[in-house]
Amino acid sequence: MIRRNIQLNEQGRLRHFLTIEGLKRQVLVDILDTAESLSGVTDQTVKKVPLLRGKTIVNLFFEASTRTRTTFELAAKRLSADVLNLNISASATKKGETLLDTLRNLEAMHCDMFVVRHADSGSAHFIANHVAPHISVVNAGDGSHAHPTQAMLDMFTIRRAKGDFYPLTVAIVGDIMHSRVARSQIHALTTLGVTEVRVIGPKTLMPKDVEALGVHVFHDLDEGLRDVDVVIMLRLQNERMQGELLPSEHEYFQLYGLTQERLERAKPDAIVMHPGPINRGVEIESGVADGPRSVILQQVTHGIAVRMAVMSMCLGSHAEGAAA
Amino acid sequence: MIRRNIQLNEQGRLRHFLTIEGLKRQVLVDILDTAESLSGVTDQTVKKVPLLRGKTIVNLFFEASTRTRTTFELAAKRLSADVLNLNISASATKKGETLLDTLRNLEAMHCDMFVVRHADSGSAHFIANHVAPHISVVNAGDGSHAHPTQAMLDMFTIRRAKGDFYPLTVAIVGDIMHSRVARSQIHALTTLGVTEVRVIGPKTLMPKDVEALGVHVFHDLDEGLRDVDVVIMLRLQNERMQGELLPSEHEYFQLYGLTQERLERAKPDAIVMHPGPINRGVEIESGVADGPRSVILQQVTHGIAVRMAVMSMCLGSHAEGAAA
Amino acid sequence: MIRRNIQLNEQGRLRHFLTIEGLKRQVLVDILDTAESLSGVTDQTVKKVPLLRGKTIVNLFFEASTRTRTTFELAAKRLSADVLNLNISASATKKGETLLDTLRNLEAMHCDMFVVRHADSGSAHFIANHVAPHISVVNAGDGSHAHPTQAMLDMFTIRRAKGDFYPLTVAIVGDIMHSRVARSQIHALTTLGVTEVRVIGPKTLMPKDVEALGVHVFHDLDEGLRDVDVVIMLRLQNERMQGELLPSEHEYFQLYGLTQERLERAKPDAIVMHPGPINRGVEIESGVADGPRSVILQQVTHGIAVRMAVMSMCLGSHAEGAAA
Repeated sequence: MIRRNIQLNEQGRLRHFLTIEGLKRQVLVDILDTAESLSGVTDQTVKKVPLLRGKTIVNLFFEASTRTRTTFELAAKRLSADVLNLNISASATKKGETLLDTLRNLEAMHCDMFVVRHADSGSAHFIANHVAPHISVVNAGDGSHAHPTQAMLDMFTIRRAKGDFYPLTVAIVGDIMHSRVARSQIHALTTLGVTEVRVIGPKTLMPKDVEALGVHVFHDLDEGLRDVDVVIMLRLQNERMQGELLPSEHEYFQLYGLTQERLERAKPDAIVMHPGPINRGVEIESGVADGPRSVILQQVTHGIAVRMAVMSMCLGSHAEGAAA
Repeated sequence: MIRRNIQLNEQGRLRHFLTIEGLKRQVLVDILDTAESLSGVTDQTVKKVPLLRGKTIVNLFFEASTRTRTTFELAAKRLSADVLNLNISASATKKGETLLDTLRNLEAMHCDMFVVRHADSGSAHFIANHVAPHISVVNAGDGSHAHPTQAMLDMFTIRRAKGDFYPLTVAIVGDIMHSRVARSQIHALTTLGVTEVRVIGPKTLMPKDVEALGVHVFHDLDEGLRDVDVVIMLRLQNERMQGELLPSEHEYFQLYGLTQERLERAKPDAIVMHPGPINRGVEIESGVADGPRSVILQQVTHGIAVRMAVMSMCLGSHAEGAAA
Repeated sequence: MIRRNIQLNEQGRLRHFLTIEGLKRQVLVDILDTAESLSGVTDQTVKKVPLLRGKTIVNLFFEASTRTRTTFELAAKRLSADVLNLNISASATKKGETLLDTLRNLEAMHCDMFVVRHADSGSAHFIANHVAPHISVVNAGDGSHAHPTQAMLDMFTIRRAKGDFYPLTVAIVGDIMHSRVARSQIHALTTLGVTEVRVIGPKTLMPKDVEALGVHVFHDLDEGLRDVDVVIMLRLQNERMQGELLPSEHEYFQLYGLTQERLERAKPDAIVMHPGPINRGVEIESGVADGPRSVILQQVTHGIAVRMAVMSMCLGSHAEGAAA
């Protein structure tokens, strides 16, 4: 018996978008192609298409993130959907309602999609496992598990800059252990067929079994950057700095901060990426972040198109199911 | 001299919706019929009708309630209105502006409707008494006084399940004294012509003059549930549990919690209702809340249609006045 | 070499709206005329025009102000724009992102306009100096520097009431020193050609060089009000009352509060204005605020039309640039 991927409907189309893991290459390519066709919308005078008119999308944020919420809200509005912003910690749960009751209620109000952000790994899957058949769930970051739309906008940015994924070498630098972004990027890069994925960071911030994901581990930045096509810097979470896992910000920058000089070790046309927000002078030098090889702001732009693609594909898969 | 009901315009149509008390049967039936005709909107692919396009509806919440605000916001958006969410405690009044000045300002901005939630009984009436002629006020809960849209969605749910109100026996169970929901339900049920309304709860949570409303009082749950067609459980407010009015949650459940066993005393086709959010294991057993006789989630669905009906009727009554 | 006013594009049209200072009379008259033509929108059944459909307007508030945010949000929605409300203190900057990085990100998301409110004088100019060419900035109040849309709605109200600016005498009463509103009003009134601008207030609240702006200074209210056509009362900020600049509220009212009796010194058809929210019994008597000469609520109404005018003119100037 084959257990179907919860993210796909019976026709194999995307219904939820929870994690890159387990998705076939073609699904990822479909997302990138759809995003490509939607990326023109933001260049029009009227930056709107009626694809999701009359649909209700709920930003279900159990963890505050204005930045991520904003990108999903903009993507939804440009698809003409109605958007509801719910900060859950501050409302229902205070009254003692369980998470499942909250979901049941939103379903009963005929909402169509939950964009979920949660501090706990696995929560988007939990919600997807419990929603009604007409609901789609998009993971907007769950604990240190996954942040798949971030990974896909990174893939979109790489494809735009490099044309294809083969034969690229990509380095991901920083706190790999706690990064949902890194985990999603690794799955996306290997599925899309890059030649090599390297992860670079201190031993204290490297997950033990990371090589099982098909990556090469480096603890020395200079060595890891040699001849790479793409450098992805991770954000150093401030809270990590207060623990025992890391020395001072200054020392971190000395060892793992990306400087112009270090970037010379990468290929001459290497691009530099970062999911934002940037800690200037901690994981990256301002000259690099704002320099000619940085595609950091393109990532932000592409994030809208990729989220529009994921939202319209997920909600389109229901229409298809209904027609079948 | 007959003093006209402030809720009706000169043609006897609904202008404000503040309380069920004093409204004739036909007005309530009109709301239910309009809600019935609007309930199909949420089943369409494009869940929107242009009835209130270009109208501005203000959620004027002096007391936080994400859940109630959400239902009104969704109802307004599905009528294509623009929605403004104002949490008043956190803004103007901090600057020392009086409530009436706030109202005058919103009127001057050509807002069309205030949806008012307030911790004080009578505040929706106070506001309705002071707004300009072009404004409608909808009470979204004022103190322990009234919550008329909640009562009407309950009536809608009963009519959907039972076809009519006669000859039903309906029991309302819990903290009758502090419940604006119960007060509004009692007025609606008696106006719509049910055979009998029973209120069931401990003496400490029963208003002294409640029988004057035409209900039968029971202090024993088993006795009160005998042969009823509809059981409406009220939410037990956590704050009541800390006072002297009630023993422990556990003891309350022993005496007044709805269990499968107790539900056997009601008619075999009795339905179970609850305004939400549910305190599982306090006023109701999970097996009953999620069981085949529960219509709790239908209530939530019907809440959108009923609020759409009330909003469009109130704002439609102005258009009529203007045409006259 | 002539340095072009940052507020104007190459064709001399309004691109940003940061301050009245430095704008020619014709630009101000254009704003008033555009607002006049848009003021009818709020009288229509469908209070919306599609002028800014598909545009994204960001309320970038570094200082909370529900009242001002609401007027801009309503104006934007009535122009059919999408609105994003960002309270910056509570989000990105907490994560350590710099202001410029926040701006770059919002630009990359293809936002079209930033409506900026900030406690520091000059911040709207700073932002306008650093945004991408496709972005317009509107100052919604920066420190004690400027509040130009407030000044223009005041001008609109004066022109509606008096027909023209010449030969009017206008008195501005209160805390001139800390008032961004007063500063913007003085520039607008002198540019539009009133006969005389008077500023009235205690010495402790009068800027030293105020006469350089072309105004006459009075410290006695009775004297200053003699024969004026327009009285503009300023709001007394509560925080000033706790310092050494002022005696008690009561004493302030005795000296500078506008009473019916004092208003007799002005012309018989003089109008009374106030930017709101009003401190009743502090800077103005209720009888005057609510009396026949008060145009305070008309100011609020006109505020929507003036903001619609400024927004559509600024965003229209890009279209023009693109066409050229």
